[in-house]
Amino acid sequence: MQKLELKYEGKAKRVWHTEQSGAVIIEYLDAATAFNAKKRGTIPDKGMVNNRVSAHLYPLLEEAGIPTHFRELLSDTEQLVHDVEIIPVEVIVRLRAAGSFSERLDVAEGTELAVPVVEYCYKSDELGDPLVSDSTPQALGWASEAELAVIRRLALQAAEFLAGFFRERDIDLIDMKFEFGRLPDGRVVLADEISPDTTRLWDARTAEKLDKDRFRRDLGGVGEAYRHILEKVLS
Amino acid sequence: MQKLELKYEGKAKRVWHTEQSGAVIIEYLDAATAFNAKKRGTIPDKGMVNNRVSAHLYPLLEEAGIPTHFRELLSDTEQLVHDVEIIPVEVIVRLRAAGSFSERLDVAEGTELAVPVVEYCYKSDELGDPLVSDSTPQALGWASEAELAVIRRLALQAAEFLAGFFRERDIDLIDMKFEFGRLPDGRVVLADEISPDTTRLWDARTAEKLDKDRFRRDLGGVGEAYRHILEKVLS
Repeated sequence: MQKLELKYEGKAKRVWHTEQSGAVIIEYLDAATAFNAKKRGTIPDKGMVNNRVSAHLYPLLEEAGIPTHFRELLSDTEQLVHDVEIIPVEVIVRLRAAGSFSERLDVAEGTELAVPVVEYCYKSDELGDPLVSDSTPQALGWASEAELAVIRRLALQAAEFLAGFFRERDIDLIDMKFEFGRLPDGRVVLADEISPDTTRLWDARTAEKLDKDRFRRDLGGVGEAYRHILEKVLS
Repeated sequence: MQKLELKYEGKAKRVWHTEQSGAVIIEYLDAATAFNAKKRGTIPDKGMVNNRVSAHLYPLLEEAGIPTHFRELLSDTEQLVHDVEIIPVEVIVRLRAAGSFSERLDVAEGTELAVPVVEYCYKSDELGDPLVSDSTPQALGWASEAELAVIRRLALQAAEFLAGFFRERDIDLIDMKFEFGRLPDGRVVLADEISPDTTRLWDARTAEKLDKDRFRRDLGGVGEAYRHILEKVLS
């Protein structure tokens, strides 16, 4: 499968058309951004780690009954996926308090939540991906009621599966961001990536952060943390 | 019924204990604040209008099947209500886009919404009443799942009733903020006030604003707008 024209260039990935309609190649980059691209940098091997972690997890999610856009790992930094229409809603599932949730509500990072928190944010760089209420995506026509029900169910199912997967590897999954897309036949599938860029992963014994917070907060050892996660995921 | 010790002093009202346990007097003030009390002022007759508008609407809401904290109008600026434990969640119901929703999402004020938007904000002056996702109140123990289901149902029912009530008076109800409280027996009832302080009301013919936005945005004629709403409500 060959990369043809560029379909989309994001902050940390490029998406390429291929000779096959309905199939695109995602190329994962080492470029890193945070705080709505106000902070920029490079994390060595990040593209490889995120590509390979996603490529490992998506087939497992499929087996667990969660449809995804994934088709095939092509190289260390490239994978083939179904070309989907991305639904402009970022879905955050929080199993414990951290990050913007902790700041906004003054809740200590790591606090247990009585039930998983699902948050929807409007995917808009210009507006800073603002949090919206659960009814807003339907009210503004970003997704139908039926699609939103599927999205919520799949997000919670995926969160539960991934929490178990990482727990077996002595890693606590604290929160995660999902994106969903529509296939040409209208089916909603999990899209984008699942990686240390889009999850918070803490060492279950030491509570050491093993994710993008090392980059956001200048904690050092960013590449090492990413490579450690890849090793654990493949173990 | 006599006012005894002060139970609570808010930005625009005082709540007084009475000789009867379980009953408190709300005294409505002319003081006005906006933008989390960064802007302060006085609106002549506002206390009287908000007290009498709420006292008129609550019995109608009760008749429509929505339990409220209201008991009795005592004077132009005082009413007797059931003493409730306020649930720290502000519930905003939006029938059309306006205010913070329009700003946050860059949607023109007045835009129709496909379904009513329900938003929950954490009631905290220190944190600026931040928006939270629908699952957050339960996750952080502010209210139970059952209470939240009641709150949502009552908020949507009240919004529908009030929209119809104002429509008959040539006023468009754009959005509104509700608060809910627990009675000693655990029942959840609509509390706080329903007034031009807590709703957006536009003249249905001219789209003129007849609510606190006149104060927030320095549009002039604030007291006149409040008195106009009282007159319409009583008509």
